[in-house]
Amino acid sequence: MRLIDRYRAVRARTVALAAPLSPEDQMVQSMPDASPTKWHLAHTTWFFETFVLAPAVPDHPPADAGYGFLFNSYYEGVGRRIERGRRGQLSRPSLAEVHAYRRQVDDAVEDWLASERGDSRDRAGLATLVLGLHHEQQHQELLLTDVKHGLGLQPGRPAYRADVPNATLTAAPQRQAAAGPTRFRAFEEGIVSIGHDGGGFAFDNEGPRHRAFLQAFELSERPVTCREYLAFMKDDGYARAELWLSEGWRHVQLEGWRAPLYWERRDGEWMTYTLDGLRPVGLDEPVAHVSHFEADAFARWAGARLPTEQEWERAAADGPVTGHFADSDRFHPGSATSGMFGDVWQWTASAYGPYPGFRAPAGALGEYNGKFMSSQMVLRGGSCLTPAGHLRATYRNFFPPEARWQMSGIRLARDA
Amino acid sequence: MRLIDRYRAVRARTVALAAPLSPEDQMVQSMPDASPTKWHLAHTTWFFETFVLAPAVPDHPPADAGYGFLFNSYYEGVGRRIERGRRGQLSRPSLAEVHAYRRQVDDAVEDWLASERGDSRDRAGLATLVLGLHHEQQHQELLLTDVKHGLGLQPGRPAYRADVPNATLTAAPQRQAAAGPTRFRAFEEGIVSIGHDGGGFAFDNEGPRHRAFLQAFELSERPVTCREYLAFMKDDGYARAELWLSEGWRHVQLEGWRAPLYWERRDGEWMTYTLDGLRPVGLDEPVAHVSHFEADAFARWAGARLPTEQEWERAAADGPVTGHFADSDRFHPGSATSGMFGDVWQWTASAYGPYPGFRAPAGALGEYNGKFMSSQMVLRGGSCLTPAGHLRATYRNFFPPEARWQMSGIRLARDA
Amino acid sequence: MRLIDRYRAVRARTVALAAPLSPEDQMVQSMPDASPTKWHLAHTTWFFETFVLAPAVPDHPPADAGYGFLFNSYYEGVGRRIERGRRGQLSRPSLAEVHAYRRQVDDAVEDWLASERGDSRDRAGLATLVLGLHHEQQHQELLLTDVKHGLGLQPGRPAYRADVPNATLTAAPQRQAAAGPTRFRAFEEGIVSIGHDGGGFAFDNEGPRHRAFLQAFELSERPVTCREYLAFMKDDGYARAELWLSEGWRHVQLEGWRAPLYWERRDGEWMTYTLDGLRPVGLDEPVAHVSHFEADAFARWAGARLPTEQEWERAAADGPVTGHFADSDRFHPGSATSGMFGDVWQWTASAYGPYPGFRAPAGALGEYNGKFMSSQMVLRGGSCLTPAGHLRATYRNFFPPEARWQMSGIRLARDA
Amino acid sequence: MRLIDRYRAVRARTVALAAPLSPEDQMVQSMPDASPTKWHLAHTTWFFETFVLAPAVPDHPPADAGYGFLFNSYYEGVGRRIERGRRGQLSRPSLAEVHAYRRQVDDAVEDWLASERGDSRDRAGLATLVLGLHHEQQHQELLLTDVKHGLGLQPGRPAYRADVPNATLTAAPQRQAAAGPTRFRAFEEGIVSIGHDGGGFAFDNEGPRHRAFLQAFELSERPVTCREYLAFMKDDGYARAELWLSEGWRHVQLEGWRAPLYWERRDGEWMTYTLDGLRPVGLDEPVAHVSHFEADAFARWAGARLPTEQEWERAAADGPVTGHFADSDRFHPGSATSGMFGDVWQWTASAYGPYPGFRAPAGALGEYNGKFMSSQMVLRGGSCLTPAGHLRATYRNFFPPEARWQMSGIRLARDA
Repeated sequence: MRLIDRYRAVRARTVALAAPLSPEDQMVQSMPDASPTKWHLAHTTWFFETFVLAPAVPDHPPADAGYGFLFNSYYEGVGRRIERGRRGQLSRPSLAEVHAYRRQVDDAVEDWLASERGDSRDRAGLATLVLGLHHEQQHQELLLTDVKHGLGLQPGRPAYRADVPNATLTAAPQRQAAAGPTRFRAFEEGIVSIGHDGGGFAFDNEGPRHRAFLQAFELSERPVTCREYLAFMKDDGYARAELWLSEGWRHVQLEGWRAPLYWERRDGEWMTYTLDGLRPVGLDEPVAHVSHFEADAFARWAGARLPTEQEWERAAADGPVTGHFADSDRFHPGSATSGMFGDVWQWTASAYGPYPGFRAPAGALGEYNGKFMSSQMVLRGGSCLTPAGHLRATYRNFFPPEARWQMSGIRLARDA
Repeated sequence: MRLIDRYRAVRARTVALAAPLSPEDQMVQSMPDASPTKWHLAHTTWFFETFVLAPAVPDHPPADAGYGFLFNSYYEGVGRRIERGRRGQLSRPSLAEVHAYRRQVDDAVEDWLASERGDSRDRAGLATLVLGLHHEQQHQELLLTDVKHGLGLQPGRPAYRADVPNATLTAAPQRQAAAGPTRFRAFEEGIVSIGHDGGGFAFDNEGPRHRAFLQAFELSERPVTCREYLAFMKDDGYARAELWLSEGWRHVQLEGWRAPLYWERRDGEWMTYTLDGLRPVGLDEPVAHVSHFEADAFARWAGARLPTEQEWERAAADGPVTGHFADSDRFHPGSATSGMFGDVWQWTASAYGPYPGFRAPAGALGEYNGKFMSSQMVLRGGSCLTPAGHLRATYRNFFPPEARWQMSGIRLARDA
Repeated sequence: MRLIDRYRAVRARTVALAAPLSPEDQMVQSMPDASPTKWHLAHTTWFFETFVLAPAVPDHPPADAGYGFLFNSYYEGVGRRIERGRRGQLSRPSLAEVHAYRRQVDDAVEDWLASERGDSRDRAGLATLVLGLHHEQQHQELLLTDVKHGLGLQPGRPAYRADVPNATLTAAPQRQAAAGPTRFRAFEEGIVSIGHDGGGFAFDNEGPRHRAFLQAFELSERPVTCREYLAFMKDDGYARAELWLSEGWRHVQLEGWRAPLYWERRDGEWMTYTLDGLRPVGLDEPVAHVSHFEADAFARWAGARLPTEQEWERAAADGPVTGHFADSDRFHPGSATSGMFGDVWQWTASAYGPYPGFRAPAGALGEYNGKFMSSQMVLRGGSCLTPAGHLRATYRNFFPPEARWQMSGIRLARDA
Repeated sequence: MRLIDRYRAVRARTVALAAPLSPEDQMVQSMPDASPTKWHLAHTTWFFETFVLAPAVPDHPPADAGYGFLFNSYYEGVGRRIERGRRGQLSRPSLAEVHAYRRQVDDAVEDWLASERGDSRDRAGLATLVLGLHHEQQHQELLLTDVKHGLGLQPGRPAYRADVPNATLTAAPQRQAAAGPTRFRAFEEGIVSIGHDGGGFAFDNEGPRHRAFLQAFELSERPVTCREYLAFMKDDGYARAELWLSEGWRHVQLEGWRAPLYWERRDGEWMTYTLDGLRPVGLDEPVAHVSHFEADAFARWAGARLPTEQEWERAAADGPVTGHFADSDRFHPGSATSGMFGDVWQWTASAYGPYPGFRAPAGALGEYNGKFMSSQMVLRGGSCLTPAGHLRATYRNFFPPEARWQMSGIRLARDA
């Protein structure tokens, strides 16, 4: 696909994802970690304006002198910005003005693309444009998780969209295929190559490619299902300190965790909020919206453990990147099936850190990934909310271990 | 005016006050103390539905079974309700649905008014209807103070309305009449009658009428102006602990108070945010948006003190209830003039408590005023945001001493 | 008594009150509001050094240049001081050094007293010395309430002293005299004089004496007993929102109040921690360690109300200042008896504020009382922890309405 | 050494370390993370009583039924315990009683050691006894860091002991040997064995021994000195966001970090608090009391990085465990010298996690290390506060990345 077409497609997809929501819906910020839809629409645009247009088209005027303060997420190198938890208090610019902002930047980007002559400045700009597309895809997933949080905590549990695609209806829990028993695939010990080899796009944190030694291990062929997680719950999993990391146990106590996020009991049945509203928990679906601490406690209870990110990558390296991604428009996991990708991100046992030889790029874009390499855990595999084509076997997602609002689940490993 | 016409007029005024705002603007909640416009629209409606319609028309179905949880403000006797600070996270019901809710309840109220036969149940309902109208007028003022806070803290300092009434323009600071020097009116010592005598409407907390003995005192004929307040600021008023109550000094330190709320210095000039946007501080206007602590410190600096609410009421009792109220549609104080009412609420030295013989009414409506009689201070006089006709000389407003987002100013008193 | 003898007696009493405690006990700070015994010993000494010796004997060197920072409580005019909640982290100076500090200051005070010639500087010094003695008596009571809090929250509930005076033993609950039924004394309406008339010592906040008009009222002849308070508890007093001020109800919820402070249920019986250890609640004793909010809720439940401080003073003005004070060395209320003074402080309905004409003295000592006149409630009458001779009918104690660690109880009033 | 002699020596050393401190000093708790000396004395004793005596001598009565609640640190499997931040509020048991507790348990342990017959229960008990000795050594270091924090934050900056050993005096900064330039030692890439091989004592988290692949790297032969750290400070190291992890930058802002903990500027000179009081910063000493975030920012500024724990262990594996440990009784780093051990712990780039194949032991002792494997960073090498003989090349210490009160410093690594 030509770059201009990719640009248009990615930008249009973000707009399409926001379309079912009213301007009011798009302003909701349910917690500081989550951002309003409108903010996602504007921030991704600011990214192109700041990092692509400003250097490539120096006489391009910024759309609005105040937008940098509002829509800069965390780039210290670019200037001050509004306190994160106040993003939801911004009624101005309006959604209509944000859409105008998008169009204005899109026009300028397209003009530049039509006129670029391939010199070194343009080549740098093109590389950043590609980064911006991957960045926008990441925000497409965040947009959905943040919308889910914003709507799911409203008393009426409203659905994200009025018309639910057929695929979702046929995936209703009672008609789901039963997930088979957990089978483990065995891997020999040995030296493996980890990280991206530099061919095609990858984020900086995926490299440099390097060698690692892995002991022999086994990895489950599918993620943990809700049925299995319910067995943990019924076995008092949330009440037995010995199953938990100390920090996780503190969260259980302080926040009263008794089930995954979005689960609630109605008339004796476990229901879960989905982007299409409240419905019964699908027993054969991968469990989602668990924290690293819950994943870790479940694994301990199950006599297993979480895989390291190297183990996960070893297993994923030799297969295709296929699975249930967001192009299904279903936005909820289906029945658990074999495969490394899709449905739910999988918490690993690996703290998020730099690979050997990693050096963040110079400049503000060096803040993209590197400065977050503390107190977070790596997740792998993508989810039903991840744009198709966005993932790679080397892709490293990361969130704090207590985070639950992402589409995060569990894959088990064990020593061979 | 017939009751039905008053009802229509008050209800229409609330809608008119909200009209300049987009649905997004009407969702802003800038702090837990402030509520979104949409919530004010819905809560005042819920009040009529719950306290008038439900008892008077027992077969009237509630508009929505979930609205009680969302729109009950603080009535423990009526049931549980959403955490106050989360009102701004509610995108559903939409503004359009809230307007439909208003119309539905208005229709039912009008039907009932048309059909009521004047029996005892109806008489009780009518009394509560009148209470509901005064309640809605209170929320009209809160709506404006909350909008001001919500817009005034947004980086662009947007104006509340596009078309500014002429009155505001002619009141631009540079053309304001100069406020004369402060003159004090003297009052003899003696027994005075305080509180409402029961003729016409009054809130429960204004009675019973009772006697109090006042020492001789003097009261300023006009509120303190910005010019006078700037002199306090230039004299290091915010840096001299000896001028402040201990609790106030703590706020100065923790929150960095250096000027009234909404004041900011731009290019060496003091500007203030108004509902019509940022403009230079009007030197002859009453200072507004100060806390009780600032009012008290200013008075001490000026060699005076704040009046008690009894002193204030004594001075106001024998004059007309005239002044600059919200019917001007200017929503900002004009040049300070003699008179007890309008422009700015005036902090008194009186803690908000029950009058001798006060007993809160039975039932949930007994929670209206009585349960807040701790840790708050009384304000008197109404402001340019208060609906005309809403005030009385016996009217008691109350806020915590650190509150600054109300249209609150200062009137000085001194011992004779 | 000669002033020098009063000085010695008061100073010795403080030392005696601390004597049963080990150096470790004297370092405990159980919450920021409470201070270690050692700190009380040092602060009262610093008060004499700073406010008496420094002005009266200008060449007197401070005992230690660092003590001002450590032992200044809240006087902004005298300089910076250690954060209140860190007082319990000071192991240095040691208790022995603090005692040496006391002796050093005592010696200097006595030298000065022996040499003073009655000039104006000396007269000011003598007045401050007397203030210092009353100040130290206040800290004697605080020392006991703070010790009680510090020991009472330790798991073993240790007693303050090994040898319990006989008086305490004979007052054991099972042998207490039964408190008679509550009788109310009636007072006519009229103008009364309130506040201290300037004869003899009084704190600044007790004046000026002034007139006030009181409606007719009735006042209980004795404080509320534990038996009566238990009836409130059994009638779900802590679970009925309609009995509580809104701010009080919040405390009930957040802090889980279900009984007065120090009450705990063991084997089905209500016990209470006293300075002599845990013992059964004495049913005929005045209830103690309740907040203003609990006192107010109890009064509402009982169909009564709390008295204003003017009503209380009116009732106390014409009687002797007799009752159960700390000279009994019993440190726990006895069986409730008629009288206005002793056993427990009585919460009033009055917020703590300035009397008409009040003006705080100039200088740092002006911070003694005046700057605390916000968000606190007045208590009257003294307690079994108050030094005998310290009280007056005009005496105004004050604490925040949520405070429970003082020896605070309830006296009921009602409208006539 | 016989086990009984080792037991006596370790136990006596703890008592000796506490000896310079008064009972008051031993009660100080300056923050929740730090514990009073008295608590360390008691907790280490409780460890032997609970985990050695109780299983080995079933009829041994606990010294005090309440001590478990007070002196259990974090073992959920053993029962509830006092809130960590309240340890400093315990004046009872007194220090004398804690010493009696120590003697009572020591007597029982010695009796048991004298009588044990080498059966399986005894063998398990002996293994736990050895664990208890290593545990007590860890608390010896914590005792010193906690004392330093408790005294170092007191205004007088008092010294820990009156008589300073000669060694400290001769190490006064002005006479220190100059640290040479930083030299790096190079290591080839390859597979290394990491972790303890099971011979002799090691903590559970040091195993199992396993293989890892390391890229080629270089490691500094000595830790970073204060001179070097000052250059970072002078180069605005604390003001340049681009040098910091995002989470570290937040700490810099919120806590106002501008220098290592305990550094303060007096008369233009950098001083540092040591256990012997305040003295000028020793330029050639290893910098200490820096957080992981400061270590990481320094390394980035220096064009280097922190080593992984595997790299560190590789470099330490082939040398002797020698260096400046606590047996010097100097308790402050000396001039920086080559070597992997002693003076200061060295932050690594490795998050604290389980080694491949790690499984925590069953029972409460399984909580010793495993449950803390989240959100902490590994430190290696021991310090001048670590008991001699306590360290190993495989030893893993761990603290949260923001911790500064440990004797923590920096060793640089870089890619080859």
